Amino acid sequence: MDGESELAARFRAGDIRALARAISLVERRDPSVRALETPPKGGEGSAAVVGFTGAPGTGKSTLVDALVTLLRKQGKSVSVIATDPNSPFTGGAILGDRIRMQRHALDPKVFIRSMGARGHLGGLSLATREAIRLLGAFGFDQVILETVGVGQSELEVAAVADTTVVVMTPNLGDGVQMIKAGILEIADIFVVNKADLDGYQRVAMELRAMLSLNAPGATGAAASKPWKPPIITTVAARQEGIDELWAAIESHRRYLETSGRAQELAAKRLKDETAEVVADLARQQARLALGEDGALTEQLLKDGSPYRAAEEILNRIGSDGRKRGRG
Amino acid sequence: MDGESELAARFRAGDIRALARAISLVERRDPSVRALETPPKGGEGSAAVVGFTGAPGTGKSTLVDALVTLLRKQGKSVSVIATDPNSPFTGGAILGDRIRMQRHALDPKVFIRSMGARGHLGGLSLATREAIRLLGAFGFDQVILETVGVGQSELEVAAVADTTVVVMTPNLGDGVQMIKAGILEIADIFVVNKADLDGYQRVAMELRAMLSLNAPGATGAAASKPWKPPIITTVAARQEGIDELWAAIESHRRYLETSGRAQELAAKRLKDETAEVVADLARQQARLALGEDGALTEQLLKDGSPYRAAEEILNRIGSDGRKRGRG
Repeated sequence: MDGESELAARFRAGDIRALARAISLVERRDPSVRALETPPKGGEGSAAVVGFTGAPGTGKSTLVDALVTLLRKQGKSVSVIATDPNSPFTGGAILGDRIRMQRHALDPKVFIRSMGARGHLGGLSLATREAIRLLGAFGFDQVILETVGVGQSELEVAAVADTTVVVMTPNLGDGVQMIKAGILEIADIFVVNKADLDGYQRVAMELRAMLSLNAPGATGAAASKPWKPPIITTVAARQEGIDELWAAIESHRRYLETSGRAQELAAKRLKDETAEVVADLARQQARLALGEDGALTEQLLKDGSPYRAAEEILNRIGSDGRKRGRG
Repeated sequence: MDGESELAARFRAGDIRALARAISLVERRDPSVRALETPPKGGEGSAAVVGFTGAPGTGKSTLVDALVTLLRKQGKSVSVIATDPNSPFTGGAILGDRIRMQRHALDPKVFIRSMGARGHLGGLSLATREAIRLLGAFGFDQVILETVGVGQSELEVAAVADTTVVVMTPNLGDGVQMIKAGILEIADIFVVNKADLDGYQRVAMELRAMLSLNAPGATGAAASKPWKPPIITTVAARQEGIDELWAAIESHRRYLETSGRAQELAAKRLKDETAEVVADLARQQARLALGEDGALTEQLLKDGSPYRAAEEILNRIGSDGRKRGRG
């Protein structure tokens, strides 16, 4: 039974349980913790975000675990958010997959959290974004975002991360040709993991060939983004290639900062998130109106289509908003 | 270059190309075709919707194809919408998977369409719902909704379909234990497809055991939904079990109608969709405001969090809405 101010005080004091509780509130879309998301210093207090995505079985979790180990050796504090949009009902605590992270479980500078979609489209990325701001405000140096399972989340990661790492392996047999639409476009860094297995050179080679088709200057889109995604080979389970991966991540971060892309991305992300927050608030108001107002619902059922009721609700949001603004 | 009224006239006259064009407009969230979604007769002109979901490789497409064949023998017109939320960039025309449907390609009473998510969360189900209303208004007897790939779409199908069919096979080796969270809850009918392979009885038996744990009366939720999902075994590639599947679908439809669930579901669906339409319109207005208003964007970047700008935008939607209402 935390009062908001008590929670805030504990959060500011660095109590990790206050952070965990704040993220739970964020997952429930409770607006009371939003004040915590602003870093005390104000402005640039946000953590760098690296996102990992790729098919199941590519060893993303092992790779993230290896990266956490490296960053801890460097003295950095790290938080990992595993997003699982395929667990809308359970709330997404995929503990089985997270057990290998147990070796960091007692380390107070490592924070690991699974976040599900809770049956709410768009909810995952909103809650994830809020959680990332909380982690930045709490003072973590690095946030790692990992997709569990498959689906739209692969592309959502890129919408939230500063650097997107796409993980592949030689053993899935699909070859690079099978890369899902859109994945090439979002990758800032490719990792060919499990490079102790046969065929890793073929995957890297195919990838290189594919990337050369998308070379800088080849298309308008590529020309405006003259970063050439490197291909890193790793054996995450043996901590091999992790230094190289981290060097590539740092190199990409420097590129973002020196090219001005960092600011562009931050602005785009804030705009996207604002639009999603507006949509989410409007959706909540719509559900409220339809729950309370029998006449509106009756009209809706008579119409057999949602557009007139939707317009009516939007109008009301307006008049309520004006009341709020005045009051 | 169709004028809206010309498109409407061709649509009402039963021109399938007008239908295809109307669905394209719906995918682009073009509001100009919304008038077409109301059946000319008014009221109950909607087609019955059966949704198929299940893991990749279970033979959903073959099963749908077999069902189309059966329905055509009965003289019914059928439309198939394949939703693919994993193709946000390509627009989702998964032609490879649809090639087996080619044998219906020249049949004017069969309409097949792939719909992608187009990188827009929530957009899939909204466009799908609109397309379904168009298909009903056009006069199709039956709409079949099929998920391509995996992800949240599995659960979205249940939000749109009258009857949800969950497809499993013996050959995936996972067993029933691996059923994704939420799938049991949404299934109105289970199909064990590829029943010519070893192990199909085991899958059916495990399923039956699992369902008996969820037996009617066991829980509050089950008690309010006293439909016992039947388990149908099929070999879709040989058209075996398809009559039984169709009988189960019809039986479920009768249950919905006699129990009053049909009306309940229709009301719930319209409310859900209205809330999504409101969210979508609000999102569009937010994007517009952030694109046009430099001062608002500046404030947003200074804040570093979206909430104040979001409130401001919601207030404006209100005042614009009021202007619209008055004008």
